[in-house]
Amino acid sequence: MNNTTASLIVIGSELTRGIISDKHGQLVSRELTKLGYHISQIVAIPDDGTIEQILHALLKSNDVIIITGGLGPTSDDMTRQAISDVAGRKLVKNEAAYSRLYKRVGERIHGANEKQAYFPEGFETILNPNGTAEGFYGYAGNTLLISLPGPPREMEPMFRTNVIPLLSSLTGHEYKPRLEYSTFLIAEAKLEELTNDVDSSISWGTRFQDYRISLYAEGDEAECERDMGELQNRCGKELIVPGDVTALSALTSYLRENGLTIATAESCTGGLCAMLLTEEAGSSVYFNGSVVSYAPAVKEGVLGVKNETINTFGTVSTQCAIEMAEGALKKTNSDYAFSITGVAGPDKSEGKDVGTVCFGFAGKNRESECVMLKFTSWGRASIRRKSATAAFLLARCFIEHKENLIDITSRWHYI
Amino acid sequence: MNNTTASLIVIGSELTRGIISDKHGQLVSRELTKLGYHISQIVAIPDDGTIEQILHALLKSNDVIIITGGLGPTSDDMTRQAISDVAGRKLVKNEAAYSRLYKRVGERIHGANEKQAYFPEGFETILNPNGTAEGFYGYAGNTLLISLPGPPREMEPMFRTNVIPLLSSLTGHEYKPRLEYSTFLIAEAKLEELTNDVDSSISWGTRFQDYRISLYAEGDEAECERDMGELQNRCGKELIVPGDVTALSALTSYLRENGLTIATAESCTGGLCAMLLTEEAGSSVYFNGSVVSYAPAVKEGVLGVKNETINTFGTVSTQCAIEMAEGALKKTNSDYAFSITGVAGPDKSEGKDVGTVCFGFAGKNRESECVMLKFTSWGRASIRRKSATAAFLLARCFIEHKENLIDITSRWHYI
Repeated sequence: MNNTTASLIVIGSELTRGIISDKHGQLVSRELTKLGYHISQIVAIPDDGTIEQILHALLKSNDVIIITGGLGPTSDDMTRQAISDVAGRKLVKNEAAYSRLYKRVGERIHGANEKQAYFPEGFETILNPNGTAEGFYGYAGNTLLISLPGPPREMEPMFRTNVIPLLSSLTGHEYKPRLEYSTFLIAEAKLEELTNDVDSSISWGTRFQDYRISLYAEGDEAECERDMGELQNRCGKELIVPGDVTALSALTSYLRENGLTIATAESCTGGLCAMLLTEEAGSSVYFNGSVVSYAPAVKEGVLGVKNETINTFGTVSTQCAIEMAEGALKKTNSDYAFSITGVAGPDKSEGKDVGTVCFGFAGKNRESECVMLKFTSWGRASIRRKSATAAFLLARCFIEHKENLIDITSRWHYI
Repeated sequence: MNNTTASLIVIGSELTRGIISDKHGQLVSRELTKLGYHISQIVAIPDDGTIEQILHALLKSNDVIIITGGLGPTSDDMTRQAISDVAGRKLVKNEAAYSRLYKRVGERIHGANEKQAYFPEGFETILNPNGTAEGFYGYAGNTLLISLPGPPREMEPMFRTNVIPLLSSLTGHEYKPRLEYSTFLIAEAKLEELTNDVDSSISWGTRFQDYRISLYAEGDEAECERDMGELQNRCGKELIVPGDVTALSALTSYLRENGLTIATAESCTGGLCAMLLTEEAGSSVYFNGSVVSYAPAVKEGVLGVKNETINTFGTVSTQCAIEMAEGALKKTNSDYAFSITGVAGPDKSEGKDVGTVCFGFAGKNRESECVMLKFTSWGRASIRRKSATAAFLLARCFIEHKENLIDITSRWHYI
């Protein structure tokens, strides 16, 4: 069986009235996707009985339908009856479930709760360790219907303990891990174009995040790796790396493992790199500090950039970047330092285009290096984020010292 | 018209694959419920073209359908075509939208982006201040279709600014303008408790954001204001202010209007304040720079904090905070400077509890001030955000110089 189709119906007027937000959609779709299912719909509907109509509509095109909610004892909880009608099975009392329920609620069972011991004939029950509503599953035609209670603290353990194993055993799907890659600095549209171009028989999915785009590949592992190599050749291998990593974590894990310290001198990023470098607890092990030299006078006064350098080359120059990095290295007494000075926009500065960013790298007993990059993106926030990402990637390259940064960045395309 | 029926379709394979969770369902259903709509379905579907089939199914039973996602330039973004097919209107180029797009992306328009200037004939466009995908709306039979981009930072402002007024005007439902207040440093649960307590006949809603919680009050204006005064008395009036403002904007607008410059010296916030102060274009007018003095040696070496101060009082002390602020003032030659040094956690430091944060404020020809705050929140990110917010609020108070900062903060409760 391939790409078995599944849908999720989430029932609750508190959802369609916007009082709470759905918690099940992401969990169910993520786990079913891992099992190889294709999720065709996630539908939230009110407690008003529309469940039956939706079930009919989805039965035709789904192999599995998971329904959450509507199993409580109150009158607006109508899932039990709807499933029984759709499956053409009458509701019958399950004695074992009845005694479990009795054990839990005692005499209160002789009221609304009693119907929680009734299930469509021939359906199996799913134990609920955290509530009175047991789940149940069975077939309506060829479609497997699985009904679970709505509250996440009841639903989630039942889903994990019972439903996931049920679905993998019933369908014979094996848990298919996806290959994940982290990509940096390349715009989503460009990445899609490139993957479409390269793609042989593997399928791609992307996930846009602030500092990277994750690329998921599915298909034959050897083909994936071959295609990924091709992509790396086109874009620059530092910009597409296997696994779930960030440019920041690649740098900080290296610093931590090697007992090294770093500092930054920032202009257009305004402290963004320092802020990111200190997000993690214990970052004082590798991070000493930063000089955010926004005004030229601070570049000179605090970092010791020469007035002549600024007058001759401007603040957005590789010359200024190198002096900034060397100043930060010295002032903070760190093993390494990097600097960023560029035009974040929205307007040109010193005759340089928006997106022009210079980076300087300095280290104890090392010759400093610098590069100038030209980002195609627009918008201050985007250029600042890209600058920080590039700085982290290049700082790690600089510290590893295998290749000149200018050679590395000459292979970076589509940034 | 009463109880007009509406549905929401959220498009994105990243949703049905469980990579991200839906952000629009709750917002749309909450706001439409307030306008008197009955939400019949919230449906999430993949980017695979099923949108057309779902649209056909929902047209019959809905007066309004809002569709988010699928407006991007890549090939899996098919909403535009599906709506055009369902409405029986061909896609035509909108010249005004084309020139807006050209202005934004330039020559890159001659690729995938160009189709973002095409809309179903006769449909109106909805401006998108934060991206290239404009929205659009028009009728398919008697059903109003409204199409918006998927990313929340693009969709939400468009929904609030354009869609809510459109829906209230078109259906004759009264749109009740809500009074908006911005609140700082108070946890959401506490705020809800306080508003429930104070509430007479007005209704409250909150919107949680990174650096504030917006509080929306509905009801008689005089009653709202009286209740708000009561809330301010309980929490501290600087922490609940009318309108849509941030602590940052309150400070930077004041600096800009008065031609003043500022600098920061940051320890536990690691550059967060500097990063925020430079988010806006043109921030070099008021921001000179920052020294992120994470290591004690940088506090001494760059900011000139006395070794004796650190040895006697520790780095998390009001004494150290004042010397940091004075150092930043002098080094950057600014009109004002503030400093932050505290325990962001997860562990105690220098015997001080997590959440203990000291702030220093210095100005030219002004006596420095300092305060120590104890935040109840846990987690590094939360303490860093709260510290930045408090620093911005207090910096403005310090510059205005109406009251001592210690007196002001003595009235701050529930932070």
